[in-house]
Amino acid sequence: MTAGNDKKIRDFVIDDSITSFFAVRKREIREYTRGKYVSLELGDCTGRIAAVMWEPDQFCLSDLSEGMVVKVRGLVGEYRGRKQLTVHQVRPAQDDEYAIEDIVPQSAEPREHRRERILSLTDKIENQDIKRLVASFWSDEEFFDQFLNAAAGKLWHHACVGGLSQHSADVAELALRVAKGYDFLNRDYLVFGGLLHDLGKVRQYSVQTAIDFTDEGRLVGHISIADSWICERAAAIESFPAGLLMQLRHIILSHHGTLEFASPVVPQMPEAFVIYYCDEIDSKMGAISRIRDRHDGSGWSDYVKLLQRYLYFGDREQ
Amino acid sequence: MTAGNDKKIRDFVIDDSITSFFAVRKREIREYTRGKYVSLELGDCTGRIAAVMWEPDQFCLSDLSEGMVVKVRGLVGEYRGRKQLTVHQVRPAQDDEYAIEDIVPQSAEPREHRRERILSLTDKIENQDIKRLVASFWSDEEFFDQFLNAAAGKLWHHACVGGLSQHSADVAELALRVAKGYDFLNRDYLVFGGLLHDLGKVRQYSVQTAIDFTDEGRLVGHISIADSWICERAAAIESFPAGLLMQLRHIILSHHGTLEFASPVVPQMPEAFVIYYCDEIDSKMGAISRIRDRHDGSGWSDYVKLLQRYLYFGDREQ
Amino acid sequence: MTAGNDKKIRDFVIDDSITSFFAVRKREIREYTRGKYVSLELGDCTGRIAAVMWEPDQFCLSDLSEGMVVKVRGLVGEYRGRKQLTVHQVRPAQDDEYAIEDIVPQSAEPREHRRERILSLTDKIENQDIKRLVASFWSDEEFFDQFLNAAAGKLWHHACVGGLSQHSADVAELALRVAKGYDFLNRDYLVFGGLLHDLGKVRQYSVQTAIDFTDEGRLVGHISIADSWICERAAAIESFPAGLLMQLRHIILSHHGTLEFASPVVPQMPEAFVIYYCDEIDSKMGAISRIRDRHDGSGWSDYVKLLQRYLYFGDREQ
Amino acid sequence: MTAGNDKKIRDFVIDDSITSFFAVRKREIREYTRGKYVSLELGDCTGRIAAVMWEPDQFCLSDLSEGMVVKVRGLVGEYRGRKQLTVHQVRPAQDDEYAIEDIVPQSAEPREHRRERILSLTDKIENQDIKRLVASFWSDEEFFDQFLNAAAGKLWHHACVGGLSQHSADVAELALRVAKGYDFLNRDYLVFGGLLHDLGKVRQYSVQTAIDFTDEGRLVGHISIADSWICERAAAIESFPAGLLMQLRHIILSHHGTLEFASPVVPQMPEAFVIYYCDEIDSKMGAISRIRDRHDGSGWSDYVKLLQRYLYFGDREQ
Amino acid sequence: MTAGNDKKIRDFVIDDSITSFFAVRKREIREYTRGKYVSLELGDCTGRIAAVMWEPDQFCLSDLSEGMVVKVRGLVGEYRGRKQLTVHQVRPAQDDEYAIEDIVPQSAEPREHRRERILSLTDKIENQDIKRLVASFWSDEEFFDQFLNAAAGKLWHHACVGGLSQHSADVAELALRVAKGYDFLNRDYLVFGGLLHDLGKVRQYSVQTAIDFTDEGRLVGHISIADSWICERAAAIESFPAGLLMQLRHIILSHHGTLEFASPVVPQMPEAFVIYYCDEIDSKMGAISRIRDRHDGSGWSDYVKLLQRYLYFGDREQ
Amino acid sequence: MTAGNDKKIRDFVIDDSITSFFAVRKREIREYTRGKYVSLELGDCTGRIAAVMWEPDQFCLSDLSEGMVVKVRGLVGEYRGRKQLTVHQVRPAQDDEYAIEDIVPQSAEPREHRRERILSLTDKIENQDIKRLVASFWSDEEFFDQFLNAAAGKLWHHACVGGLSQHSADVAELALRVAKGYDFLNRDYLVFGGLLHDLGKVRQYSVQTAIDFTDEGRLVGHISIADSWICERAAAIESFPAGLLMQLRHIILSHHGTLEFASPVVPQMPEAFVIYYCDEIDSKMGAISRIRDRHDGSGWSDYVKLLQRYLYFGDREQ
Repeated sequence: MTAGNDKKIRDFVIDDSITSFFAVRKREIREYTRGKYVSLELGDCTGRIAAVMWEPDQFCLSDLSEGMVVKVRGLVGEYRGRKQLTVHQVRPAQDDEYAIEDIVPQSAEPREHRRERILSLTDKIENQDIKRLVASFWSDEEFFDQFLNAAAGKLWHHACVGGLSQHSADVAELALRVAKGYDFLNRDYLVFGGLLHDLGKVRQYSVQTAIDFTDEGRLVGHISIADSWICERAAAIESFPAGLLMQLRHIILSHHGTLEFASPVVPQMPEAFVIYYCDEIDSKMGAISRIRDRHDGSGWSDYVKLLQRYLYFGDREQ
Repeated sequence: MTAGNDKKIRDFVIDDSITSFFAVRKREIREYTRGKYVSLELGDCTGRIAAVMWEPDQFCLSDLSEGMVVKVRGLVGEYRGRKQLTVHQVRPAQDDEYAIEDIVPQSAEPREHRRERILSLTDKIENQDIKRLVASFWSDEEFFDQFLNAAAGKLWHHACVGGLSQHSADVAELALRVAKGYDFLNRDYLVFGGLLHDLGKVRQYSVQTAIDFTDEGRLVGHISIADSWICERAAAIESFPAGLLMQLRHIILSHHGTLEFASPVVPQMPEAFVIYYCDEIDSKMGAISRIRDRHDGSGWSDYVKLLQRYLYFGDREQ
Repeated sequence: MTAGNDKKIRDFVIDDSITSFFAVRKREIREYTRGKYVSLELGDCTGRIAAVMWEPDQFCLSDLSEGMVVKVRGLVGEYRGRKQLTVHQVRPAQDDEYAIEDIVPQSAEPREHRRERILSLTDKIENQDIKRLVASFWSDEEFFDQFLNAAAGKLWHHACVGGLSQHSADVAELALRVAKGYDFLNRDYLVFGGLLHDLGKVRQYSVQTAIDFTDEGRLVGHISIADSWICERAAAIESFPAGLLMQLRHIILSHHGTLEFASPVVPQMPEAFVIYYCDEIDSKMGAISRIRDRHDGSGWSDYVKLLQRYLYFGDREQ
Repeated sequence: MTAGNDKKIRDFVIDDSITSFFAVRKREIREYTRGKYVSLELGDCTGRIAAVMWEPDQFCLSDLSEGMVVKVRGLVGEYRGRKQLTVHQVRPAQDDEYAIEDIVPQSAEPREHRRERILSLTDKIENQDIKRLVASFWSDEEFFDQFLNAAAGKLWHHACVGGLSQHSADVAELALRVAKGYDFLNRDYLVFGGLLHDLGKVRQYSVQTAIDFTDEGRLVGHISIADSWICERAAAIESFPAGLLMQLRHIILSHHGTLEFASPVVPQMPEAFVIYYCDEIDSKMGAISRIRDRHDGSGWSDYVKLLQRYLYFGDREQ
Repeated sequence: MTAGNDKKIRDFVIDDSITSFFAVRKREIREYTRGKYVSLELGDCTGRIAAVMWEPDQFCLSDLSEGMVVKVRGLVGEYRGRKQLTVHQVRPAQDDEYAIEDIVPQSAEPREHRRERILSLTDKIENQDIKRLVASFWSDEEFFDQFLNAAAGKLWHHACVGGLSQHSADVAELALRVAKGYDFLNRDYLVFGGLLHDLGKVRQYSVQTAIDFTDEGRLVGHISIADSWICERAAAIESFPAGLLMQLRHIILSHHGTLEFASPVVPQMPEAFVIYYCDEIDSKMGAISRIRDRHDGSGWSDYVKLLQRYLYFGDREQ
Repeated sequence: MTAGNDKKIRDFVIDDSITSFFAVRKREIREYTRGKYVSLELGDCTGRIAAVMWEPDQFCLSDLSEGMVVKVRGLVGEYRGRKQLTVHQVRPAQDDEYAIEDIVPQSAEPREHRRERILSLTDKIENQDIKRLVASFWSDEEFFDQFLNAAAGKLWHHACVGGLSQHSADVAELALRVAKGYDFLNRDYLVFGGLLHDLGKVRQYSVQTAIDFTDEGRLVGHISIADSWICERAAAIESFPAGLLMQLRHIILSHHGTLEFASPVVPQMPEAFVIYYCDEIDSKMGAISRIRDRHDGSGWSDYVKLLQRYLYFGDREQ
């Protein structure tokens, strides 16, 4: 392989010859004057690109499927104002040919470290009912595995494998630091809210070979997914107090802060306010830090659409 | 009893001597210069009124509690610009002394009639999974009893015992009438959505002797209450299809139409739009009809705060 | 003609050689280094495309005009990220060479069928003044002809020749079905509102060879166009009751439901609410059905800008 | 008459004995323990007050009607936190007993002066079609009389007999002063828009003995009332240019500036923007000047609900 | 003094005889049938009440002025639905007769403690320019004295003498705790923003004998007051870096987070976001804690208008 | 030079060979397969264009800097749907080779004329404190020079060298014309507000060789820049009245009319309302007039994004 093969999608320029590994995000067979062609969307850990194979072979027509990792040889061109990869060859990738972190972005914090932070935070919960409820998620190994794998977003913040668990532990820890100034706050509620507020994202995004919305993520939404899971787990705990469950559900349901941002109820308990603010801070700081890195920590960012503003990171010489 | 005793709260005027039955909505013991007095909020099927007993007896101080129905003798006065009942005597009411419909408003449609409409609509569902899911709520007799008893609102529309089941059947039937013009709509989804969209109101309002919000109604909200119940019931049905459950949840979760009105997701399926519109129409018509009756079906209404407008019912002579 | 000539704009791909019929939507003469060229916008029943003729002949420079149907030979290319047709030959089309429905989309419901539905609905009106008013529009043959020809939108719903009359009859019939549940509603008002609410679209859109906004459509708007016509027709009926006219105008003026959506007054009569909801339902269902067809009735739609969401039509296999 | 009799409603204090003239704004016959009583709303040029006659005579029960001017003897008391007049005697007022300006507020500018300003502005119009259209309103003497009598508001600005004509001439003159800076503006359009933009208020408010909304004012609104009148008048002028009418209607229809404020279209012509701004300035200055006068031109106003702020008129000593 | 004299305004009930000390918040001389009377608004550390003296003596008519602390003897009555104190005697209070904390609410944190927190936070600033700028405010003793005295609000949060300095130190400390999770944040900016963001409230509220808005508070606002002071102080420091001043101003100007909440610019630097969130958290927690105390830390609060919701503090028995 | 060299950016078409003068707005050195290339943004008085030099010489790599005016030879092509200039040669322009008005747009009103209008308006101020304050800006020659040079916008209105002073004098004169109808308005406040409201734009935009936002323009904003300057100048005037300064600051701070449009306070003085409206009118008329010129004063404009509408300038033949 030549050095050019390490090139990631974000760095492609017109006329680049590419030989690299990608996840197949979308695949459609279409017709044109000379017969059938295959239209693809390919992705790696830095972005996605449209691709087209004009004279597809049998593999491409029948076996290539969404979610697969493939090795592709092709040429970067342009179509309707956007870059497009014309594919010359494509074949399935062998598991040992590529590193998954080149295909989907991965959390910088090791999985084991996230795992331990979560278990240690769970240990701090004093109320036995709450602790039992939270622990029931981790003791289901298959679920915990998915949780540790899950992303907290598609693009904006913690949009990587492992991002959800990192963000959840961060919010819990931040909430405890905030609470140092306000002694009337119930720490158990804060740890619960920090760890589980985004629980439903386990099923809102698929993260196998690319991070994307699931049907359930769009139709039900991560807040209601989490809420029904918490009800289900609490029902399995003997005589879980109804009034406590109601309050815990409230903290999850209200954590987006306002109805406009898809919470079905607004925060009405002091701890619900704190979880809302801590989630806001940690996700905003996550996104800002990502953008800041792209600009080497100084000067102005490009226009940030989600914030409807430019960001400023200070003058280089200061 | 004199005729005056039939008087309902809405008709009270200053200086009326009242002997009647009320639900105790709130009760507080307070102090003043001459000792303790009891401050109450009393209600009947036409409204509520503040009340005060200046020299409370033992019953009033210790046994009188919220939710109780009591017989009261007193005088209508005024305090800080609002009517207030000065209580001279109060005692618990016997069950056979009063009719519950004088205490809490009742649906005009007989319970049996509502019950049959609901069962007959359920029967129309063709998809066996959906039918089984809906039927599971009715076959739980205790639950069905609560459902038939529940109100669909505190004041605005169908705010009466039985109002929820009446409204639910109405929305289902309306949705079927609407669907006659659009053959691509799935009728089973519409019946499901009509019957169950407001399910959670069973626990959002208490309706014993007065209609009021429960803690759960405020902290969790009827949409999430319904959603978790549907998950719970579906989990109890063998191999209930996951994709179907996702779509049914979507119809319930999105039925307020916009995030601003407390749906955590917006309608994304054709049937979800229809249920949203039919709920809108039936609740608006319910409220408008109630207001129209108060004005004998003609002329201008008083200012309707929730609609931010006056309503016009046509000229008398037309 | 070769099969390729049947190709509609929506299906054009780069490098297609096209020989087909189009409406001229826009035409401008511009200059460039080698002299004058003609810039066009061409349309057919599936969409529109920019076109350019670099060496225009005399016809193209002098006689070609907006609204004309022409036969064009050319090649599909691309300019600034959008498809563009380079025109090699253009000449006026003979009336018998093309079918108008290939140029402008046509309602699937036959004109005669729409005509009869409208007359039959008018017949149902019991109040003689209202009936006379509505009938006065249909007895003006030239106007009725325009009405039956008119579109109800440019792109979104019922955007075809005949779409307005189809939508109008649909809303009237839907309103009558809705009214079955609410007996206090005046059926005559509903039929009136259903049939005439979008009347002004007769002059809001031009539909000769393409559907587009008229100057009046933009500067006055279809609601005020309809309102002044109704005043004009009522003035021509002897002793038309002033109070009735006021209410009928209200139903037309308020049918967009809120000020934000360009109604100068909000619905204040029960029937005005119903017409608003029925118009909402029928136009939304019209648009959703159109989008659903494009996706063969299953899976996710593309992003629908006007609704700010994706639509879901269920899984293929369900 | 004693001095006390000159007292106006705004100055009433508890325990005042009143003998004065009022317009009857509302009248209802109600029942209470001792038989029938009459509940009234009375008004004069400074405000309105609730009134009650406990032992009404025959006149009060049968002949007293809304809109009548009456002579009343009574006592100021209080009911439910608001002042209320207990009426001891009431009889119809003779036309020569009272001055109408004590009953309804009147413009400070003499009618003749307003009339002349309007005619002189009309004379300045150069386009003969526009001039003919505007003049057609003034040459209809009955209409011009109503126009000169009409109010431009109920309470906020120019809320007095004659207020509409004063405000209309003011806006036209202001628009001409503004136009001095922008020579591309069509002066004829500005005079037209200034004089006629609020035309419909002639029928939006009744001003006989009190200023109040008419049914038509609420259900149709002054913008659409004006629009249909202008269509009607233009239709009566031989070959009035259709394109010109369209532009004139646009200026009227868009003069509230945004859809939210009940214009069915937003300003799209330069002159429509100017009329919108001039109407804004003149009505705001009218309201501010009224509030300023009440505070003797210095210090802070009371909270102004419509502006959601306090107003500041400078320090006394400056 | 009798025990009754300790009564605070919040606890007044009708018919109470009061002898106590109050601040005079407003004073007006008015006329009525029997001559002149004086209308007052009196305040203490728990609220305010309207008062009236019907037969004012010379002191009351000439010397009594707003801002004075007075000793009053009177009777609690009611007028137009609100409590009102009828004053029988009033005289100036001697400085040693009353404690200022009974007149205006005082921070629970001792002044010296607040002073030290502020100086110690200032000491932590590493950048010498920023430290010099911040210190310049404290080294101006008169200003520092005012700052330590100032309130951070009229009613909502930290609405007490000393509240501003307490809140400012709290926000700075909270920001440092938050920053522990995000190492790219500039701590000096956070301490600066925490300590000085609400600086302008020193002149936005007067706190002598009652907390109220100043003219400048309303017309200029605390954000711009602070901004111009910071410019003034920086100008007095030799060669204060322009780019640094620009960033510090940005943090102050943007700390309300959105334009709607009166910041003239939105946060564009990471530290500006953090100061905004920390101010939000500390002020919300301050208000919530105050409301929570009034409800003894459990159950539901009254409706909180500013938050448009009820607050829930958990069940008593949990 | 050939005629082609006069071509301005707005008129470039694909394949044009260009030799002309431009300001360098942005410059970045990047790498590609064949080494380094330079990416530029060039501007002239009609717009801006991306440019690229594939084989940059030493000057281009080391000395070329942002803000420089350069002579460029190149070819117009297209990249990703937008025009792009491929640069063949570039060298610094000599001051006498180009006219600055070809590089940056210039006000049509001569500088001396603007200067005189401003001084003459200042002369009309009667209050000596206000006059001294305003004059202090003009007597600082360096500042006055910058003010006369400054732009009032980047693109929308008065977006040219000298535009700020033209707009400022226009608003002052317009305010005086408006004030003719409202005699309670303080003329001195209006002249002050007209002349100085946009003062801060002197530092919000840089206008050397191109108009662009400064860092300070984005982080502090022109309103706060002006506010602090006014405070600074007033502090330098002996015993400038504090109450007057407060009112003048209010007029500047509130001139955007609402918080949403970045005023930290809303207008609370009559004069503040007038300055707000006059600024609105003059900037809207400035923008509309610019758009109107581009369409030769008739027909429809292109879609105007900032106004979210099309503009109509009347039919050609009328």
